[in-house]
Amino acid sequence: MTDADRLLALRRAIPVADEAARRAAFDRHSLLAKPAGSLGRLEDLGAQLAAVAGAVPPPVPERPAVVVFAADHGVHDEGVSPWPQAVTALMVRTFRSGGAAVNALAEVVGATVAVIDVGVAERALLPADVDDRRVAGVTANLRTGPAMSRTDAIAALLVGADVAAATIAGGADLLVGGEMGIGNTTAAAAVIAACTGAPAEAVTGRGTGIDDATLQRKIGVVADALLRSGPPADPVDVLAELGGHEIAALAGFYLAGAAARVPVVVDGVIALAGACIAGGLAPPVVGSMIAGHRSTEPAASLALAHLGLEPVLDLGMRLGEGSGALLAVPVIRSAAAVLGRMAALQDVVGPAPH
Amino acid sequence: MTDADRLLALRRAIPVADEAARRAAFDRHSLLAKPAGSLGRLEDLGAQLAAVAGAVPPPVPERPAVVVFAADHGVHDEGVSPWPQAVTALMVRTFRSGGAAVNALAEVVGATVAVIDVGVAERALLPADVDDRRVAGVTANLRTGPAMSRTDAIAALLVGADVAAATIAGGADLLVGGEMGIGNTTAAAAVIAACTGAPAEAVTGRGTGIDDATLQRKIGVVADALLRSGPPADPVDVLAELGGHEIAALAGFYLAGAAARVPVVVDGVIALAGACIAGGLAPPVVGSMIAGHRSTEPAASLALAHLGLEPVLDLGMRLGEGSGALLAVPVIRSAAAVLGRMAALQDVVGPAPH
Repeated sequence: MTDADRLLALRRAIPVADEAARRAAFDRHSLLAKPAGSLGRLEDLGAQLAAVAGAVPPPVPERPAVVVFAADHGVHDEGVSPWPQAVTALMVRTFRSGGAAVNALAEVVGATVAVIDVGVAERALLPADVDDRRVAGVTANLRTGPAMSRTDAIAALLVGADVAAATIAGGADLLVGGEMGIGNTTAAAAVIAACTGAPAEAVTGRGTGIDDATLQRKIGVVADALLRSGPPADPVDVLAELGGHEIAALAGFYLAGAAARVPVVVDGVIALAGACIAGGLAPPVVGSMIAGHRSTEPAASLALAHLGLEPVLDLGMRLGEGSGALLAVPVIRSAAAVLGRMAALQDVVGPAPH
Repeated sequence: MTDADRLLALRRAIPVADEAARRAAFDRHSLLAKPAGSLGRLEDLGAQLAAVAGAVPPPVPERPAVVVFAADHGVHDEGVSPWPQAVTALMVRTFRSGGAAVNALAEVVGATVAVIDVGVAERALLPADVDDRRVAGVTANLRTGPAMSRTDAIAALLVGADVAAATIAGGADLLVGGEMGIGNTTAAAAVIAACTGAPAEAVTGRGTGIDDATLQRKIGVVADALLRSGPPADPVDVLAELGGHEIAALAGFYLAGAAARVPVVVDGVIALAGACIAGGLAPPVVGSMIAGHRSTEPAASLALAHLGLEPVLDLGMRLGEGSGALLAVPVIRSAAAVLGRMAALQDVVGPAPH
């Protein structure tokens, strides 16, 4: 089977949400020992988990897994970030040694952390035993030409799908996509602009915290890239013209999670770029997505609105790595737990008043 | 020592926040392996935990404890709730048997759940071995006269303080105050009105989900109570005129947590009424408070603003029991964990650029 055929099969494998299970979850909530609707978003989340699993109550996710996809970006040549590309490789080392934010946050919620190289520039700095799933080198400069070929975009997407499938086969019951890549807020902004139709100045943010001059340069780079690439033919075209290998991998990761009826927690702006690509390839995938938080990057809110997702948390974060998504994991667990563990109101107090 | 003397001693025992530790936490954050400020609210929360503990990094709370204070309310006579008072006692049974929301949510975050009777009406329905810390019977109807005596208000407050101290002595390192009491959103609304100066129509909400006619009656009850009681002499006067035994106990619970330099997570509108009383008695107590969530009850937002607290979560919840506060526990743990476990940026990448 060619990669293109594999992608088509993956898109066709995304189930539609189980609306009967969703309704049954809301019905169950209305019978539990609490005022109707008093758990707010937790009730919606529980119903979504039921719709994903096709079961009421849905299982409480006990084995969340974070996968951090790491890649570098040719657009770094444009001076869109003050950080050298070596930082991508050095942060991969840090994820592996346990000293990054994602490690601390994963420990709190009992999540595993895996790191995948899908195109890091400074390979000499990577751990010797890094999980090498590279499909090509580093992307080309998206301002001046396509970031990658369609072939490579599909291959990187399938890497993410394969990693998700293997992670689920290993026992994971909740997937969190993370990423690392110096320059990747530029690619993510461009991808989200292409998916939503928003202009460069609306999608482009300060990323790691760039100054005004760098922000203006970054907006110009995104604007040039959008003008160069023109209206995209399809989501793979968006990836090829404007994306990054980690964005492609995240798109595939979300698709394969949905195909296995495993909920996926979407993180910040880079993850949302991948989510927009996944949603373009197979709209029902959005039913499996839970937006973990609202990143302060402007393109994040545009992508959330585009996907119709309301984030669980809004804590003013903009780190990536999967950090904001991890913080939402206990809320997701709680949404399933109340559906599964609470007593019925009638068993507590008899028939309701009125 | 009289109860009045004990309360005075408790108020004097509240430490001011350790501002040097807070600054040191922010300084540490600026050196960790991430862009400066990229963890948003998590950085503020970590600094608050450092200021409470007087240590950087602050300890990661491993043993959170929820205490649910249960009491009934004489104002129930006014028809402010469709639920009979028996529900308070029956929910105490449910907390004990593990079938309530607070039990499911506590299990997710590894918190213990204790239930204290501070004035439940239908005692015959309570478990035989209920933790009986009643200081009087049920409060009187706050519309027509003081809810309780100043003596009883102080005694109930000291019950909460004693329970907090015992819970901390038992190993708890994070306190969550919960409550149960049919009619208690009426008392909480009146207390918050008295503390903030807001009018009855601004503080009064639908509680468990009352209809329009009941809401209008409830607003009238709160307005009458505020007119009757007049400008309060002091926070104990507010409790005595308008409060409830669980609101008094929660105020004492927060004070004793702060006195022991243990952070307290404040839940919804009833808990916030107790927090406003505690803040009135000893303003530095607010430094130990973390607002777990923003309840949809209108008085909750007024109380949060009055206390200067920004909630961690905003999930459209209005259940009480400590439910919203419990959901914030993993975020609080995460705030401490990143400060304690992340590597320094310089150890990862060398000196920062520019």
